[in-house]
Amino acid sequence: MSTHQAPRQLKLGFILHGVGPGWGDWRHPDADPTASTNIDFYLRQAKLAEQGKFDFLFVADSVHITEKSSPHYLNRFEPLTILSAVATHTKNIGLVGTLTVSYSEPYTVARQFASLDHISRGRAGWNVVTSWLSGSAENYGKPAHPPHEVRYRIAAEHLTTVQGLWDSWEDDALVHNKETGQFIDPAKLHTLNHQGEFFSVRGPLNIARSPQGQPVIFQAGASEDGRNFSARYADAFFTEGSTIESSQAYYADIKKRAAAFGRAPHQASVLPALRAIVGATEEEAQALHRQAEGLIRIEDALVALARSFNEHDLTQYPLDGPFPDIAQYGADSNRSSSERIIRTAREENLTLRQAALRYASPRKEFVGTGVQVADAIQRWFLNDAADGFILFEALPYQLDAFITHVVPVLQERGLFRREYEATTLRGNLGLDVPENRNTAARRQAA
Amino acid sequence: MSTHQAPRQLKLGFILHGVGPGWGDWRHPDADPTASTNIDFYLRQAKLAEQGKFDFLFVADSVHITEKSSPHYLNRFEPLTILSAVATHTKNIGLVGTLTVSYSEPYTVARQFASLDHISRGRAGWNVVTSWLSGSAENYGKPAHPPHEVRYRIAAEHLTTVQGLWDSWEDDALVHNKETGQFIDPAKLHTLNHQGEFFSVRGPLNIARSPQGQPVIFQAGASEDGRNFSARYADAFFTEGSTIESSQAYYADIKKRAAAFGRAPHQASVLPALRAIVGATEEEAQALHRQAEGLIRIEDALVALARSFNEHDLTQYPLDGPFPDIAQYGADSNRSSSERIIRTAREENLTLRQAALRYASPRKEFVGTGVQVADAIQRWFLNDAADGFILFEALPYQLDAFITHVVPVLQERGLFRREYEATTLRGNLGLDVPENRNTAARRQAA
Ligand SMILES: Cc1cc2nc3c(=O)[nH]c(=O)nc-3n(C[C@H](O)[C@H](O)[C@H](O)COP(=O)(O)O)c2cc1C
Ligand SMILES: Cc1cc2nc3c(=O)[nH]c(=O)nc-3n(C[C@H](O)[C@H](O)[C@H](O)COP(=O)(O)O)c2cc1C
Repeated sequence: MSTHQAPRQLKLGFILHGVGPGWGDWRHPDADPTASTNIDFYLRQAKLAEQGKFDFLFVADSVHITEKSSPHYLNRFEPLTILSAVATHTKNIGLVGTLTVSYSEPYTVARQFASLDHISRGRAGWNVVTSWLSGSAENYGKPAHPPHEVRYRIAAEHLTTVQGLWDSWEDDALVHNKETGQFIDPAKLHTLNHQGEFFSVRGPLNIARSPQGQPVIFQAGASEDGRNFSARYADAFFTEGSTIESSQAYYADIKKRAAAFGRAPHQASVLPALRAIVGATEEEAQALHRQAEGLIRIEDALVALARSFNEHDLTQYPLDGPFPDIAQYGADSNRSSSERIIRTAREENLTLRQAALRYASPRKEFVGTGVQVADAIQRWFLNDAADGFILFEALPYQLDAFITHVVPVLQERGLFRREYEATTLRGNLGLDVPENRNTAARRQAA
Repeated sequence: MSTHQAPRQLKLGFILHGVGPGWGDWRHPDADPTASTNIDFYLRQAKLAEQGKFDFLFVADSVHITEKSSPHYLNRFEPLTILSAVATHTKNIGLVGTLTVSYSEPYTVARQFASLDHISRGRAGWNVVTSWLSGSAENYGKPAHPPHEVRYRIAAEHLTTVQGLWDSWEDDALVHNKETGQFIDPAKLHTLNHQGEFFSVRGPLNIARSPQGQPVIFQAGASEDGRNFSARYADAFFTEGSTIESSQAYYADIKKRAAAFGRAPHQASVLPALRAIVGATEEEAQALHRQAEGLIRIEDALVALARSFNEHDLTQYPLDGPFPDIAQYGADSNRSSSERIIRTAREENLTLRQAALRYASPRKEFVGTGVQVADAIQRWFLNDAADGFILFEALPYQLDAFITHVVPVLQERGLFRREYEATTLRGNLGLDVPENRNTAARRQAA
């Protein structure tokens, strides 16, 4: 059992999305099939998650589609814009968005997250991704998508450049003395002068240091390179969490790596993805689960699975034959997810059809009443498989059900907050605002 | 006098900014010196402009500062994020943001404006700029800032690529048939396959066509290249409008160029910048004007002037000597603005000090009571110098004063709307939603 003390609290994120994270959920009778670009839907979900005291909202992203892509990816808000819109309708909940380092410029990325952090008064977070679909390159005029290992080198240089820009302004650089007309103290505005392998950025950033100093960094690297990157730079880690055992293995591994980089455990939260299905009774939950499965077409499940294999066409293989030998397509794409899919298929002797449907369906462990789902959450939380979760809404109104049935149980058990501790994401995650590196240097020189 | 018919209506934009567009205004006792990153200030101004029935809000932008830059540029929200935040607190007013083609990727630009157009339900506009400070290149790892002429070639290719991406989805591409599970009609989702001199972008865009089909295009090119670009692609033109004569000349010229590109006059609105100072009485207005001038320090006025000359250091010249020979620094930077400053200085025999203060001070013509300022506006409007204006707030609460004193006079004279005509920017500007090019092609083929 766990050695953690009572005050350790669950961290909960909610994936803010339109249709389709369950691949068939938009077909539900209650689903709004236009949700993906319906601002009212987003504002409703965001406010609801805040009523549920979630730590943060998360908007995922990708930069490449074809006409075969899943509904979830085809049509979506760009994260920085939708998070900025949500910011002024919420007060406490964090606002985390994905942005790819492979196809963006550090100066613009730094500005947009700093701007979101000001707009939200300290609630911005960046999920740093490298993008795993090679077609992304074609939307950005690049000769080729960089190989997996290079992508993580780019990521490290990109992220540290952005973080350097976020420290351009010392906290007291803005003087605005109306008498003398001095607006800033020029000694407290710093040029970065970064010259690296992939980027060269002079600075300073044209926006003052934001309330959190440094927006919070999220990362979901799962490969060897990905884990080393995550452990070193991220404040919280997303993971697919297919089973409690695989999550425990990941948890132990990433915490060890993080510790090696000098990070305290609370600075490195492990957050598996969670597609819960909650009902007022067990029967209702099971019926909802069957309904969710019934909405998934096999062709859509195949497309969803293919995504981890760089959109390799799976319709060429017999559906009811053994899982095909396609590891090569995953290796340079979503390496870890593709490896896990293959491993599960081998271990359980699944056909292609079974593997695809398994991948697209919510896990049984998190289907049940509020108490049952809270039990499962607690089991993961107390057994070093998770510091919290990132919740997907598998069916319409499942966020409502989670808040009605699961959250109060977690609160009663002392596992989850009843009120926000702070108005910043750092505050709610228990992370300090880091001292500006330039202020620190000045202090050390003095 | 004018040949325009009565129903022609003024178009009014408001520059949404924090401190400093008047270069000294942040020193005013009522000014909030932290306004530039104060979301509440922005929301207040935005809602107020909407009460005043303004056509649109405009957020300017630039991507390079040094510790010598003016307060206005030093610290500012990134336009797409702040406009998204403002979007859900307004219903009718347009949301126009600057974004530079020299340091951005068409795929990301297309997504962010389409996203803003969805969030605002049809109110997005893009002010296409080429950036005129060579230091911008150093923030984006570019060996050199492209020369003036090349920047406009980049602009044309960038903009048309973005516009192509905005047509990726035909209006009826989203089928979302819950019965069959068909989400889109793949025949109505189009790849762009653009391969050009500066960009290559495959598409399709991962967001459905937005309510306006094509967000509205604003442009302020004033050089020969700039005017040709504007006239061809923009729906509305910003211009500095230093005198009614120079605006008339610009107006005649740009309308002629636009007509040559097949554009109707109402598709090509000329909007000079307007720094009005309005008082309840003429004395009050004059006192406010003197106060505004008194807040400007000569060193700040020099920096403001230097901006049109690629931040060339003007402190090396005698302040009370003749205007120095610095045309070369402006030619590849803000060519037209630098030329105009030199021309005025020569014509009126101004010293460097006088030229700088003149440049930083509001024009006398628009200082006065509501009736006086409305008279000046009407004079420009009816004499082919302007189709409307883009208002800068020269002192705190001048937006309030303009709405209280000037707008009702314009409304009484039938020059300005009492109620919004539409909930989209295109609707309020009288611009149709263009047919999707792919739908048109299909129609023509049939
Ligand atoms: C909860 C969760 C959310 C993720 N969100 C995104 C995302 O928004 N965009 C993206 O490109 N990848 C996303 N990923 C994938 C990761 O960025 C990463 O590519 C993946 O976990 C494989 O790891 P690797 O890159 O180390 O092979 C997510 C992963 C998880 C577990
Ligand atoms: C009202 C107005 C607003 C402008 N806003 C911006 C801006 O936000 N960013 C920018 O880089 N330039 C801005 N400009 C400058 C123009 O984009 C352009 O560079 C300038 O008018 C010189 O024209 P030229 O490029 O043809 O020489 C603005 C100009 C005017 C008149």
